[in-house]
Amino acid sequence: MIDKKKIEVCLSPALYKNYENKEAIAVVTDVLRASSAIVAAFMNGAKKIIPVATLEEAKAMKDSGYMVAAERDGIVRDFADFGNSPFNFTPERVKDNDIVYSTTNGTQAIQLASSSKQVLVGAFLNLGGIIDHLKKENTEVLILCAGWKNKINLEDTLFAGAVVDALLKTDQFYTICDSAYAAQDLWLLAKDNLVEYIQKAAQRTRLKKNNLDDVIEYCHTLNQTSIIPILRKNHLVKL
Amino acid sequence: MIDKKKIEVCLSPALYKNYENKEAIAVVTDVLRASSAIVAAFMNGAKKIIPVATLEEAKAMKDSGYMVAAERDGIVRDFADFGNSPFNFTPERVKDNDIVYSTTNGTQAIQLASSSKQVLVGAFLNLGGIIDHLKKENTEVLILCAGWKNKINLEDTLFAGAVVDALLKTDQFYTICDSAYAAQDLWLLAKDNLVEYIQKAAQRTRLKKNNLDDVIEYCHTLNQTSIIPILRKNHLVKL
Repeated sequence: MIDKKKIEVCLSPALYKNYENKEAIAVVTDVLRASSAIVAAFMNGAKKIIPVATLEEAKAMKDSGYMVAAERDGIVRDFADFGNSPFNFTPERVKDNDIVYSTTNGTQAIQLASSSKQVLVGAFLNLGGIIDHLKKENTEVLILCAGWKNKINLEDTLFAGAVVDALLKTDQFYTICDSAYAAQDLWLLAKDNLVEYIQKAAQRTRLKKNNLDDVIEYCHTLNQTSIIPILRKNHLVKL
Repeated sequence: MIDKKKIEVCLSPALYKNYENKEAIAVVTDVLRASSAIVAAFMNGAKKIIPVATLEEAKAMKDSGYMVAAERDGIVRDFADFGNSPFNFTPERVKDNDIVYSTTNGTQAIQLASSSKQVLVGAFLNLGGIIDHLKKENTEVLILCAGWKNKINLEDTLFAGAVVDALLKTDQFYTICDSAYAAQDLWLLAKDNLVEYIQKAAQRTRLKKNNLDDVIEYCHTLNQTSIIPILRKNHLVKL
């Protein structure tokens, strides 16, 4: 009998302590917009991304000379070089650079998962790359959704479901996690019309209010790169 | 324009502080098995149910002469009169009686929601009654799922989805809560084969292991009663 590996899904950082698993690879996702922006930054040549949880840390890093991306509630902070639209992380800005990055939900979630065996950043943009890596590593998997201020959101849940669905199709993985089943079923419902499905998401309403919803279609585009951001000590690099 | 009322769904007690709303009627659900058992107890003539969070409180109430139902992890505690199968709350035991009740998840969730405008206990058994009451009251609604030890579970999520789906079909209610949309879509997916869908739920595996899964079909039977248990101070009575 094959020794199948467990998959779990944690739908909010506020639930993380119930799922923490040092034996698992953690895939942290914040589809709108931090994890999509991080993947885009590496696609555009960023060398290193340093996630910081607080604005105070981000400000201190700016003062010591770093390029800083920082937002709260979707709005770029005045001390920062730019906010967290994936479109901000252009090759002109990020190529060969180290970038400090602080966001409402995503960067805290990355730090929260730091005791895991590996911490990867997942988005629809690198979905296939993440899935291939997890199959290759053949170890337990925890998908941590950044959500919105500890509430569950649809877009991160759908990403989790996409990973769960792909892994359960192999004979390497199993789950007894109700969140994983829920996410998988929502993904199967949404996958053929992802952008249309996500129109009802609360985050879409928030982004629209601030004229930031130009990223929604891009952030729900699958497999634009096989780059996998991975946490090494306190910063993200390309795996 | 009609003043529509907000519906939200909180999928785990660990997320409750993000959803707490004194203006809302809270519907607490723990389909397997506490909320189903509470509804069944009132169907069988119970006068009053006193939910207590800890086993210590339950034991003290037993010592002072109360009939006590108490379980942890599905297993009845030795000092208790019986556990939390709905089948335990027979007319012979409960008719005209006051019962102290302590469970792994459900009774804590009821206490957690106690600052709400009203606290109701919902189960598939009284689904239609709950929905009719919420339409009549025409106020904000929060559905609190008891889950399993702070993890999200499928059966409570489906109950929440059933309520959301019915309320959104009226023009009285709206939502911008992603958990509400997720729950609704899962309900729509599961509703025609509810018992079959729930076979994959983690709780079903737990109950089966302890030979307690005889209640699953009963707990997923719709509209056996219009009784609505409501919290008055520290105890539940029939509305």
